[in-house]
Amino acid sequence: MRALTLRSSLEYCEKYPAPTPTDGEAVVRVIQAGICATDLQLVQGYMDFQGVLGHEFVGIVDEAPHHPGLLGKRVVGEINAACRGCPVCQAGRLTHCPHRTTLGIDRRDGAFADYLALPVENLYPLPDEITNDQAVFTEPLAAACQILDQVSIHEADRVLVIGDGKLGLLCAQVLQRAGCRLTALGRHPEKLQILADRGIHTSQDPTSLSPGFDIVVEATGTTGGFTLACEYVRPRGTIALKSTYHGQTTVDMTALVIHEITVVGSRCGPFPRAIELLKEHAIDVQSLIHKRFPIEQGTDAFKHAATKGVLKVVLEMT
Amino acid sequence: MRALTLRSSLEYCEKYPAPTPTDGEAVVRVIQAGICATDLQLVQGYMDFQGVLGHEFVGIVDEAPHHPGLLGKRVVGEINAACRGCPVCQAGRLTHCPHRTTLGIDRRDGAFADYLALPVENLYPLPDEITNDQAVFTEPLAAACQILDQVSIHEADRVLVIGDGKLGLLCAQVLQRAGCRLTALGRHPEKLQILADRGIHTSQDPTSLSPGFDIVVEATGTTGGFTLACEYVRPRGTIALKSTYHGQTTVDMTALVIHEITVVGSRCGPFPRAIELLKEHAIDVQSLIHKRFPIEQGTDAFKHAATKGVLKVVLEMT
Repeated sequence: MRALTLRSSLEYCEKYPAPTPTDGEAVVRVIQAGICATDLQLVQGYMDFQGVLGHEFVGIVDEAPHHPGLLGKRVVGEINAACRGCPVCQAGRLTHCPHRTTLGIDRRDGAFADYLALPVENLYPLPDEITNDQAVFTEPLAAACQILDQVSIHEADRVLVIGDGKLGLLCAQVLQRAGCRLTALGRHPEKLQILADRGIHTSQDPTSLSPGFDIVVEATGTTGGFTLACEYVRPRGTIALKSTYHGQTTVDMTALVIHEITVVGSRCGPFPRAIELLKEHAIDVQSLIHKRFPIEQGTDAFKHAATKGVLKVVLEMT
Repeated sequence: MRALTLRSSLEYCEKYPAPTPTDGEAVVRVIQAGICATDLQLVQGYMDFQGVLGHEFVGIVDEAPHHPGLLGKRVVGEINAACRGCPVCQAGRLTHCPHRTTLGIDRRDGAFADYLALPVENLYPLPDEITNDQAVFTEPLAAACQILDQVSIHEADRVLVIGDGKLGLLCAQVLQRAGCRLTALGRHPEKLQILADRGIHTSQDPTSLSPGFDIVVEATGTTGGFTLACEYVRPRGTIALKSTYHGQTTVDMTALVIHEITVVGSRCGPFPRAIELLKEHAIDVQSLIHKRFPIEQGTDAFKHAATKGVLKVVLEMT
């Protein structure tokens, strides 16, 4: 099958072996898949991953031994394949299973290929109201929704989202629906406009904002973003970390202690809630798609995705 | 009056001006006061503080205009003098008032002197059951109790306290009473023995412990301690920061995100709860007193307090 693989570098491969599903897994024929910031980091050596990249996808179930009802269904999929037997899984923390593999990130070939394999429990059939373009955003939108499971947000809360990348734009929209006094801080007028069009207060200039936010969502993954979060959160406020960081970050821990700040790391989130939001057309994801490439031009697609200011780049397997 | 003051260096002063209480303040004649790790940091330049050091004390109310009932009472005192008028105070976060001064730490002369001044609302009369030696520990014990207000701890939780300094020993004892599966990790057998004598499981060797603690209390204030906390906390677990840090700390933020760790800064705590614990003789603080010095020998007392392995050093004003 066709696949975009990472060995020492990113390569398009015409004849990569198709996945052979183990017991309890289904094979999905990928329709399209999105390139994520994590994919760009993986190419830079993050996680030492080797294999097929890609974890944001929509596809059709092509093989589902023992689960004939799934066959032919259009699905999205949770990316962590947990063992479901260990104490961590039994405590309900499937996304933290120490034995998990992760689609296109850790010991499991990913979605930039004609076919992928995932446990059937990971797959979510899609309602017709959700287009393929929208469906590709299920995984990052679920990650944005995860904040709501970790931080309790009230209507009177002043909330700041730092970063107008893809995840920042999704977080801001999710938080707007949660109901709060929201500001999105970014550097790109055209990206912030997507939020402004939905009635979200945006800013390009942190100095124009009063500090003292109850909750700050750090979605830049940079030391500068975290430092800004520390400056703008109120004492006893919460900073949600919604992005992975490159290398080590220097932190003024004493400031966290003196101001009794809570810092919450936040990763993968609930697919059902994301699917519900997409079904209701509650989130503008269409505006986030910047360009499409056929999988054969995958390495060009990655170059484009890495260009400053570019939002979502979609790979098409058709 | 006699006072131990910090200008360019720490000095004993025979004739320091006594405090003149402003409206709503009382003057307390100090009986004895404890030297804290923060005091040692202040001498090193932390907070750029100049004036009389000291914030852990017990004393007798000597002047209390408009509050004659307080006169002659033996008291301890909360160290943050809040304005009680700003929005932060009105939201109940008095210890985070942006206008606050802090006894012996920030723009308010402290307890290593014959007299100190504090707002009357900061003072807590002591029951007779509490000795002066015990009373000196009210402030750090309240800080240890603060963890319970910030992190919900259940009986089945595995909890690790890292650090066998004064605050670590108090935190471990407070957590033991909260009920949980507790381990205290330290480097000094004689300090850990204080906890072992009270039935707390102790260890000098992190490699002998299984990771996966639900809650880790970091009470060393070192990068090494924080790194260890990150290694031993479970995914979605909580690290409470219970000590100030020297300079910047290098943090692997991506690990916090991937494992969805919560980091909670924790500072001053509830005096009433600490007084209750001391009254019940629920906490062994007596074993933590290492040596006593008259205030005239205050600079020697600081040298002694800074010696490796030394716990609490008490200054006596009598």
